[in-house]
Amino acid sequence: MRVHIIGVGLIGGSFALDIRNAYPDVQLVGVDTEPLHLEKALSLGIIDEIADLDDVSTSDIAIVAVPVDVSIHLVKTILDKIGEQTLVIDTGSTKGKLCEAVIQHEKRRNFLAAHPIAGTEFSGPEAAISNLYRNKTNIICEVEKTAFKFQERALDIFQRLGMRICYMDAKSHDRHIAYVSHLSHISSFMLGKTVLEKEKNERNIFDLAGSGFASTVRLAKSSPAMWSPIFEQNKENVVEILDEYIHNLTNFKKLIEEDDFKEVYKEMERTNHIKAILNGIN
Amino acid sequence: MRVHIIGVGLIGGSFALDIRNAYPDVQLVGVDTEPLHLEKALSLGIIDEIADLDDVSTSDIAIVAVPVDVSIHLVKTILDKIGEQTLVIDTGSTKGKLCEAVIQHEKRRNFLAAHPIAGTEFSGPEAAISNLYRNKTNIICEVEKTAFKFQERALDIFQRLGMRICYMDAKSHDRHIAYVSHLSHISSFMLGKTVLEKEKNERNIFDLAGSGFASTVRLAKSSPAMWSPIFEQNKENVVEILDEYIHNLTNFKKLIEEDDFKEVYKEMERTNHIKAILNGIN
Repeated sequence: MRVHIIGVGLIGGSFALDIRNAYPDVQLVGVDTEPLHLEKALSLGIIDEIADLDDVSTSDIAIVAVPVDVSIHLVKTILDKIGEQTLVIDTGSTKGKLCEAVIQHEKRRNFLAAHPIAGTEFSGPEAAISNLYRNKTNIICEVEKTAFKFQERALDIFQRLGMRICYMDAKSHDRHIAYVSHLSHISSFMLGKTVLEKEKNERNIFDLAGSGFASTVRLAKSSPAMWSPIFEQNKENVVEILDEYIHNLTNFKKLIEEDDFKEVYKEMERTNHIKAILNGIN
Repeated sequence: MRVHIIGVGLIGGSFALDIRNAYPDVQLVGVDTEPLHLEKALSLGIIDEIADLDDVSTSDIAIVAVPVDVSIHLVKTILDKIGEQTLVIDTGSTKGKLCEAVIQHEKRRNFLAAHPIAGTEFSGPEAAISNLYRNKTNIICEVEKTAFKFQERALDIFQRLGMRICYMDAKSHDRHIAYVSHLSHISSFMLGKTVLEKEKNERNIFDLAGSGFASTVRLAKSSPAMWSPIFEQNKENVVEILDEYIHNLTNFKKLIEEDDFKEVYKEMERTNHIKAILNGIN
């Protein structure tokens, strides 16, 4: 089996590491716009060789793991280049616009739209880790538009990597992911911004902040190059959930201002049962 | 040495565990309004015996670790009960109102206002853990109002537990802690509320959310009984920082709505350097 890893960062690199483990005979080749990333991926043993995008038809599978503003064009380019035998898997965090963009492509059946819910706040090939995908959910969108033999090929990989599969249409994916992922990133970035602005002496943050702050602000380390296009492609859902979040914060502030601490208590108590849900995550 | 642990939950219980380690001959006695907590603390070896608040004068040190709406009255009651030889240490998350409340007390010099920046989202004696305080900052407020011999006694404990000491006036403490702790809790609670409201099918949160969501919402598991009085006592600072946070979120939303993704990118990039600060926390 030959696999093109297109984008050898955290997501693509982690796929490469696990695929090599699961398929000892695999040949992994890398494509990236950043030569230093390719060198790094090569020296870390993530890929066996540096490849060209024009070679992609020589691979059985191409895994696309690039920012979503790139993939929305790149997936079409790759579909143009492949023959009948190559499966193209996208792994980005938005699915609506991409599925729309390829719907009329003559190679649509060679394409599988996936979103593995896995990652860290780090990026680049050095961030790639083994077993990143074990026990994680992989959302597959519009699976019926992918040829059955390619579904099977993709599922074989996902299963060997230990992923749980969840099927969803692309619109629902984007809505749900705005709730459970995109909002968290914005809340984290704006929390970081707010504290950096108010706490001019950064030494104070370092000295006084505890693990609670670190946990809520962790996502503010994420890559703007990755996240800005995600918010752009999922604008409608992101704005809607942000509206709701701002509304809830404003209401909570009002309760504090009006000294209604009975209701402040109740607001927190009603949210407390998120414990039970969170116990299943991590 | 005899120590009264007043409130045998996460904070008081963790102090007890570490003090026992640091002072093998210590006698630890517990006071709590919840008989089940006392039984649990006894059976877990956190305390040696259940005590009465009226006995507090028999102890060298009383560590008060109760919600701040309780401590603001209880610390005065304890100061009324002690003799010349007992040191009373409060460990709550707000310091302004408490320091004000005891400023005229004839035993003010027996009191030390502290805030160890340590904890988890769990509560009760079962949540108590060893080494919770190691390498954590302990903010001591208005240290000059505590008698020197009691400062020494407290510092000996804090040093043996491995804490870093930071001196601050109570007003500054409340302002800085609103930034680096209280805001994180509100952002987390409201994030949890927002997602629970929009995502009516909680199974979806469980299936689709990743570690990023879990990390930003973790603090929404915290105890409302502890946090509601904190927001009440630190109302002014909390409202101010919440205003700022809501302002920043609203502005970010506006940038998205207006398709100004260059500025969305820059907003995130400017906050990214929080990495360097966060690397020191945890």
